[in-house]
Amino acid sequence: MSRYRVQVRVMPRAALLDPQGQAVEHALHALGFGDVAQVRVGKHLVLEVKAATQEEAVAQARTMCDRLLANPVTEDYELAVEATR
Amino acid sequence: MSRYRVQVRVMPRAALLDPQGQAVEHALHALGFGDVAQVRVGKHLVLEVKAATQEEAVAQARTMCDRLLANPVTEDYELAVEATR
Repeated sequence: MSRYRVQVRVMPRAALLDPQGQAVEHALHALGFGDVAQVRVGKHLVLEVKAATQEEAVAQARTMCDRLLANPVTEDYELAVEATR
Repeated sequence: MSRYRVQVRVMPRAALLDPQGQAVEHALHALGFGDVAQVRVGKHLVLEVKAATQEEAVAQARTMCDRLLANPVTEDYELAVEATR
């Protein structure tokens, strides 16, 4: 069993409103950053898993996203997995 | 003026407790993912800025992080800036 570091990026789906992103956009405009647009806010998670192979680590991470880390209706996710020393 | 897409990753500092990460870790253990450890939860923001050069876009994004997007005491951030078509 090796240790793998998993990076997960969870973002609201492009077709959906993102109220948190809109709030940040308004705040940036209020601070004088008038040229900012299209702000979207998601989550970034970093975690470590033990697995026999990198493929198994990816499969584990995907299951975690489907079951807990991302909302399949409103969010998309991307995974990156790398071995740790 | 060109448009640039800015990706910002904001993570809790390594030395600090991350209660949200701990909550996610406990939830993953409860779901049967017993081998998960070191969970940390941060934010990922995507936004568009207008700037004359890529360097100016990076400078703008850095100022936004320092003033609003990241808490300089508790969080670290990383930026990636690319031109959009």
